[in-house]
Amino acid sequence: MRVVIIGGVAGGMSAAARLRRVAEDAEIVVIERSGHVSFANCGLPYHVGGVITERSALLLQTPESLAARFRIDVRVLTEVTRIDRDGKVVCVRNLTTGEESEIAFDKLVLSPGAQPVRPPIPGIERALSLRDVEDTDALVAATADAKTAVVIGGGFIGLEMAENLLHKGLRVSLVEAADQIMAPIDPEMVAPVQALLRDSGIDLHLSASATAIGEQSVTLSSGAELPADLVVAAIGVRPDSRLAADAGLAVGERGGIVVDDHHLTSDPAIYAVGDAVEKVDAIDGSAAMIPLANTANLQGRRVADHIAGLSGAGRPTLGTAIVGILGLQVASTGWNEKRLRAAGRDYLAIHTHPASHATYYPGAETMALKLLVDPATDEILGAQGVGKEGVDTRIDVIATAIRGGLKASELAELELAYAPQFSSAKDPVNMLGFIAENHRTGMTASIQWHELTDALVGGAHLIDVRTPGEFEAGAIPGAINIPVDELRDRLDELPDGELIVHCAVGIRGHIATRLLASHGRSARNLDGGYRTWAAISA
Amino acid sequence: MRVVIIGGVAGGMSAAARLRRVAEDAEIVVIERSGHVSFANCGLPYHVGGVITERSALLLQTPESLAARFRIDVRVLTEVTRIDRDGKVVCVRNLTTGEESEIAFDKLVLSPGAQPVRPPIPGIERALSLRDVEDTDALVAATADAKTAVVIGGGFIGLEMAENLLHKGLRVSLVEAADQIMAPIDPEMVAPVQALLRDSGIDLHLSASATAIGEQSVTLSSGAELPADLVVAAIGVRPDSRLAADAGLAVGERGGIVVDDHHLTSDPAIYAVGDAVEKVDAIDGSAAMIPLANTANLQGRRVADHIAGLSGAGRPTLGTAIVGILGLQVASTGWNEKRLRAAGRDYLAIHTHPASHATYYPGAETMALKLLVDPATDEILGAQGVGKEGVDTRIDVIATAIRGGLKASELAELELAYAPQFSSAKDPVNMLGFIAENHRTGMTASIQWHELTDALVGGAHLIDVRTPGEFEAGAIPGAINIPVDELRDRLDELPDGELIVHCAVGIRGHIATRLLASHGRSARNLDGGYRTWAAISA
Repeated sequence: MRVVIIGGVAGGMSAAARLRRVAEDAEIVVIERSGHVSFANCGLPYHVGGVITERSALLLQTPESLAARFRIDVRVLTEVTRIDRDGKVVCVRNLTTGEESEIAFDKLVLSPGAQPVRPPIPGIERALSLRDVEDTDALVAATADAKTAVVIGGGFIGLEMAENLLHKGLRVSLVEAADQIMAPIDPEMVAPVQALLRDSGIDLHLSASATAIGEQSVTLSSGAELPADLVVAAIGVRPDSRLAADAGLAVGERGGIVVDDHHLTSDPAIYAVGDAVEKVDAIDGSAAMIPLANTANLQGRRVADHIAGLSGAGRPTLGTAIVGILGLQVASTGWNEKRLRAAGRDYLAIHTHPASHATYYPGAETMALKLLVDPATDEILGAQGVGKEGVDTRIDVIATAIRGGLKASELAELELAYAPQFSSAKDPVNMLGFIAENHRTGMTASIQWHELTDALVGGAHLIDVRTPGEFEAGAIPGAINIPVDELRDRLDELPDGELIVHCAVGIRGHIATRLLASHGRSARNLDGGYRTWAAISA
Repeated sequence: MRVVIIGGVAGGMSAAARLRRVAEDAEIVVIERSGHVSFANCGLPYHVGGVITERSALLLQTPESLAARFRIDVRVLTEVTRIDRDGKVVCVRNLTTGEESEIAFDKLVLSPGAQPVRPPIPGIERALSLRDVEDTDALVAATADAKTAVVIGGGFIGLEMAENLLHKGLRVSLVEAADQIMAPIDPEMVAPVQALLRDSGIDLHLSASATAIGEQSVTLSSGAELPADLVVAAIGVRPDSRLAADAGLAVGERGGIVVDDHHLTSDPAIYAVGDAVEKVDAIDGSAAMIPLANTANLQGRRVADHIAGLSGAGRPTLGTAIVGILGLQVASTGWNEKRLRAAGRDYLAIHTHPASHATYYPGAETMALKLLVDPATDEILGAQGVGKEGVDTRIDVIATAIRGGLKASELAELELAYAPQFSSAKDPVNMLGFIAENHRTGMTASIQWHELTDALVGGAHLIDVRTPGEFEAGAIPGAINIPVDELRDRLDELPDGELIVHCAVGIRGHIATRLLASHGRSARNLDGGYRTWAAISA
């Protein structure tokens, strides 16, 4: 049996290596357009920035090493021009010699990845993208004598590029068409990241698009002209499904190759994996484009298993992701609030600002966490986190809880590793569970930062239960300050009507709402407290 | 309703604070024998070592702050001498004045904690223990002019004390009666920790017990005399169940107060929580003593809920734990191999040595992970990890997976946050899942480090598939070196009979076993490779 794999990174190479382990007799041919296979694609921005100093560190395998270990026939600098499904043949062109030939297959695996989106604006040909080692080499060369750079696109790759160019000593502008960077993260969570970018010297332009790229500048829709010895286009990617579409394979609305649970395309001899394929969203079962290396790797393994006659079913995808940016960890899993609202789904949002470990032990850092919950079923719909440390762990735990079918309230019961250097006796994830439980049992009612203004205009009164010192250092306009420790004795100072209470992060606010409830005054707690409100409203 | 709580730390104080939030009308009295409540008990060793510089950092709340915020009547330096169950009264003595009195209760919550075990050896009165702030003060004073210390007991607290005394500049000996430190960790996993202790200058004595404590020394069973200006007894704790037992409440075989799912004792008016009570083991449902702060806190919350008429059922306990020791994270959840073997349970052990993040990104550290699986059901029975970073995250994820009922093979499917600074595209937890899946599907068979000698004596041949350079740097006696990349062409060099293969950590060994299987030679892979074997056998 001959298996031909198109694309020699992540999904394609995982399929090839796994296939050899489960099918020693298979003939395995990997065809890769670029000059390298199995390179560290997630490391490319860091080599541009000089964080990964050695280029060789990016090259995890070579055609020779793969031949020796796995008896894989790897052909780099080779492009597949056409898939002949009836003839079970792919037509290939050697990009060095121009020579064309055909390779027959019994099974074909498509792992062509995704292509950078390049908007049709004047001068776009000068913009560099980052997809493979050759792109990286071009960027390294271009940064050698550049002093200024414009990165177009504030997604994960754009941010990594901006940080690395800054690290390299360039003056960096970042241009994002939306009103916030990093679409998977909600605006109040991403606001501190945007502030950090600006504080670090990155010239951030939101709700802005590039209209022209000149020889040394980028012109924005506003008319502003940004200095740009170097321009990087990191606007996003689109599935590289041209070959599949040309061959008449089913392609979805979002351009991804359509596959079934076994990653089979509409042709039973052809599989597809990785950034080029549509996944199934774990929250609502819809088609999802999730260009992540870990998902691609797992799919490659599953395809190899299925070819070898083992079980190889895929699972719906949560799209857990993380990016490191200027010392911050920014991570998410599942859906965000924007998407839930757009889909018209009912949800409960919970914001917290816990410490990464016990505050009495040196070095604790405050993070922001957000949990999204289905209020009817207590199902966890998504989570986000931003902070200097410990965010990765909490998002991983929540992603695992979702996969295990745990309800939001059940996060309270998780037994997580605790010593004061590593966590708190009530871990931040446990605290999210306690809060979810309080909502479920009617022990608390909250109001979100974006609902506050309407509520106050509508006549509600805002009680700030922090200390006078905290209140003086910065308060929400219109708030009345009654510290929580005095509230029991100052109930008669409370105005009539609807009450909203808040503290710094929500804990004292919760104590206050419980106290008020027991004295016959219902009150809602401002979720996430002053800190969440101030992150985006102050 | 008056609720009296005996013990003002962790479980007791969690119960008190939660109770106020759910029952504003309750009268809450907390009785604490020491001079402080709600102190940072897990931080005490680090104040002795000067890592937590300010003593005040340990005192999270005071009787005054608890009165102001929660209207809790806190009585420190007060001891309960007797519980009169019929009269629903506790008899208390003010330790300052000696005055005795009675306090009536409607509900009573016992949270007395555990007492340090103190062996009856001559001079034991000179040994200090570490249970409360007063003990901490005594230790701080004692270290002021001590130059040498002996810590008796190599459990988590003993290790934290040894590290902190070393940090303080003392010469430290650590004496442990068992043949390894840290009972929850299996010997091959703990061996590198023991090596690190010795390399760091700690004089470690295993399988040794103290027979006498002199004025400046500790005498061991071997006759050795260890210099000891200071002696710390950290041998373990026993549940402080005397009051409960005297009152006729049910106490289990291991000395813990027996409670039901609602943490009720055999008296329906009396609850008990924390280190003093028996928990239910999550793996086999047996009675378990698990003295951990996070468990105590959760139980306190559940008791408060139950008193207030809310649901408050407890869950079986996994006993997830972590300790930081000399820059290493050592963590575990569920059962270890020793315990499984002692219980006669069938199990599969999986050892790996993954990097904390992508190796091409600077700063990756190698950790050791171990997963224990029920081979019949694929159920996860336990996990352990040792390494400089990333161990906490992986143990947390596995503990969450166990709680969510995920099978070992399903760890392969977890979507964990990946960027090269934080993890690998195949996270170490995913890799454990892949290996479990390979076992389940018969794709691999392994042999454990402790089974190797018998197998070789029995005639099996050991093939080391590492490179010649690795082989020369250190090899298992009797191994034949055929690098994996040459194996396909050197099959005729293999001896007849049973084959065992190994590499450095297990990955190349797996590739080799698959290759051999397809050529009709069945072979077992040495689990964890040379690294696991060498950790304990070299």
